[in-house]
Amino acid sequence: MENLKGACIIGQSGGPTAVINASAQGVIQTALASPQITRVLGAAHGIKGVLADQLYDMGQEDPGQLELLQFTPSSALGSCRYKLADPDVDDTDYKRILEIFQKYDVRYFFYNGGNDSMDTCNKISKYMQRVGYPCNIIGVPKTIDNDLSGTDHCPGYASAAKYIATSCMELYQDARVYDTGTVVIVEIMGRHAGWLAGAAGLATWAGSGPDLIYLPEVDFSMEAFLADVKRVYEDTGNCLVAVSEGIHYGDGTFVSEAKTSATDGFGHAQLGGLAALLAESVKRALGVKVRGIELSLLQRCGSHLASLTDVREAYLAGKAAVEAATAGLTDQMVALDCTRDASGYRCQTKLIPLTQAANTERKVPLDWITPEGNGIRQPFIDYALPLIQGELQRPLAHGLPQFAHLKKVRTTDMD
Amino acid sequence: MENLKGACIIGQSGGPTAVINASAQGVIQTALASPQITRVLGAAHGIKGVLADQLYDMGQEDPGQLELLQFTPSSALGSCRYKLADPDVDDTDYKRILEIFQKYDVRYFFYNGGNDSMDTCNKISKYMQRVGYPCNIIGVPKTIDNDLSGTDHCPGYASAAKYIATSCMELYQDARVYDTGTVVIVEIMGRHAGWLAGAAGLATWAGSGPDLIYLPEVDFSMEAFLADVKRVYEDTGNCLVAVSEGIHYGDGTFVSEAKTSATDGFGHAQLGGLAALLAESVKRALGVKVRGIELSLLQRCGSHLASLTDVREAYLAGKAAVEAATAGLTDQMVALDCTRDASGYRCQTKLIPLTQAANTERKVPLDWITPEGNGIRQPFIDYALPLIQGELQRPLAHGLPQFAHLKKVRTTDMD
Repeated sequence: MENLKGACIIGQSGGPTAVINASAQGVIQTALASPQITRVLGAAHGIKGVLADQLYDMGQEDPGQLELLQFTPSSALGSCRYKLADPDVDDTDYKRILEIFQKYDVRYFFYNGGNDSMDTCNKISKYMQRVGYPCNIIGVPKTIDNDLSGTDHCPGYASAAKYIATSCMELYQDARVYDTGTVVIVEIMGRHAGWLAGAAGLATWAGSGPDLIYLPEVDFSMEAFLADVKRVYEDTGNCLVAVSEGIHYGDGTFVSEAKTSATDGFGHAQLGGLAALLAESVKRALGVKVRGIELSLLQRCGSHLASLTDVREAYLAGKAAVEAATAGLTDQMVALDCTRDASGYRCQTKLIPLTQAANTERKVPLDWITPEGNGIRQPFIDYALPLIQGELQRPLAHGLPQFAHLKKVRTTDMD
Repeated sequence: MENLKGACIIGQSGGPTAVINASAQGVIQTALASPQITRVLGAAHGIKGVLADQLYDMGQEDPGQLELLQFTPSSALGSCRYKLADPDVDDTDYKRILEIFQKYDVRYFFYNGGNDSMDTCNKISKYMQRVGYPCNIIGVPKTIDNDLSGTDHCPGYASAAKYIATSCMELYQDARVYDTGTVVIVEIMGRHAGWLAGAAGLATWAGSGPDLIYLPEVDFSMEAFLADVKRVYEDTGNCLVAVSEGIHYGDGTFVSEAKTSATDGFGHAQLGGLAALLAESVKRALGVKVRGIELSLLQRCGSHLASLTDVREAYLAGKAAVEAATAGLTDQMVALDCTRDASGYRCQTKLIPLTQAANTERKVPLDWITPEGNGIRQPFIDYALPLIQGELQRPLAHGLPQFAHLKKVRTTDMD
């Protein structure tokens, strides 16, 4: 496609991360500096903001505040979970998007998100090609789940991994101070892939982490789990367990949703979540002191523990998206291409077709998991450890974080 | 009391904190350097280690590892929750302690803990005086709860406060990314005093924190709580709430233990804890999306977010204890004496009688809480903000914390 000139839109979508705003910063700053991009628009709550004509003029923002985006967790522009219909069935949304693109002469569209967001991006891209509206569309990957395919890893994963590993190291210290013994069960995000729970293994590798780790890649057995905990507890006097929220039985039922004895069949398991449910099961089976801890949202917004490597790569992914689009490329997602060898870790961006990235899930290879299904093996460490390197020099005020405050000047207010 | 010469014992007791090991480091390093102290012994699991003759020779430790104690959360020597009997009723433990003191010629005893630990320390001190065994005994304060009286604040509180405030700032960013609205309820430690939950107000003060904060100093009303949440949610589209685990109804019943409609009277509230229970109540009453988050152990072991001020004061408290004891003082607790004025914050140590410190609880003044009982006022900020200042330059290996590894050479193994 030829070199286009016009406005661009950047949207954020899906669950936020500690570094998704670093990608937004990469897109916005690069776009603002591009001679081909006449106006940089931020979509409020992703594609919903495009549909609702809720767009912010990013050129009106204070450059100092844009610079703070890399230190600000969550989605500064707002996010959404909105799935576009199949355009062959219902093209209402697509027509509206085209209308907005035409209204602002949008020739570049950048969408920052995970699997579903790449699906959105892909559908819009294919529609614009079909109706012959020239617009270069590039996806910018983001997900703490790390389950996007076609990329070595996803911006957002490493910072969550660093948060999880560090927190587990601290919990390991805390959970063994008494001579009376405790079982602590830490619930970690990851509905279908165990990349995040596996990151708890970095703590174990560092000498202060979970004794047992359960990933959704392996079918869960309550019997084997209780036997594992009993063995470790009897051997060492304590037991620290990391579990992925997505662990499930052989029939596919999530453990968190199964009606176990811990809920007495009243189906109230969701009141406390998986960690509380497993804690109750251990308490009943082994009669020991046990505590369930859910890392919950903390693990995805813990920007104070962000990996510098992650922040840099997230920014680069945003920058690369704009550079690719203004060079005439479209219908692609930025991916990370990494090598790990004796000379260290290197990462550069590449492009893969949006179709390849959308709607596929990448899981932890089974041979990276112990044969017993209760821990991770060295290849996982070799993969994940380089990603969590480096600490951010965060700007602080009065000992507390400083986050970006965007003015969010609406384009409609300016007309 | 005259200048004594002999061995010393340092013990840690009660729930661990991010900086209790900094106090231990202050005691151990100062004691090792003291010409009056012939041998520095660490008690395994506090007073239980004394009773069991499980003592470590701290002189055998690598000085580099002792230096790492200030960065290591939890109780490196092990902790206990052991309440000594009234010596007039049963003096078995006291006779055993005297026996151990005599065995190792212990002339200095330092006990590092909270209310109950100061009670232990006080009882031992009084017993040794009564039987005429010369031994200088000094308590070193520690508790994230900040409820020890006679001291401006307690080492350990500030680091937990900084963790809570920072985490709430991040959660505030995360919990408002969608245009669909969410209520997030954060459960914070503090069974009887609201110092920790109040620290969430530092996040609000910094512009990114809870809309509502409930402390145990004020009787809780579920009706008023639900009305507060409804109002904030309707006004702003979201609501972030911080609650102390110790909130209770007018009749003294803890909300976490009450059989509310959220538990259907089956009494399973403990499965998920207070945050899950309140989340369920909000969901039922308002029909909105809600999430409960329990900071759990994370808030007391989060040494990666420790306050430099706290670490320094914790170390100083340990050092001051040894200096006081070797100068001939006994039967005292180290306290912090602080001033906050236009010229800044200053802190020095002082001594108060152990009897004064033991078994009394200091609560948040009622006029530091809003009249509605759902937030904190400026005096709380003025009090707490200076305490969370400064960041630790933590030693890291491969992007993860480095904790002290003590050899723990047993004295009995050396005999």
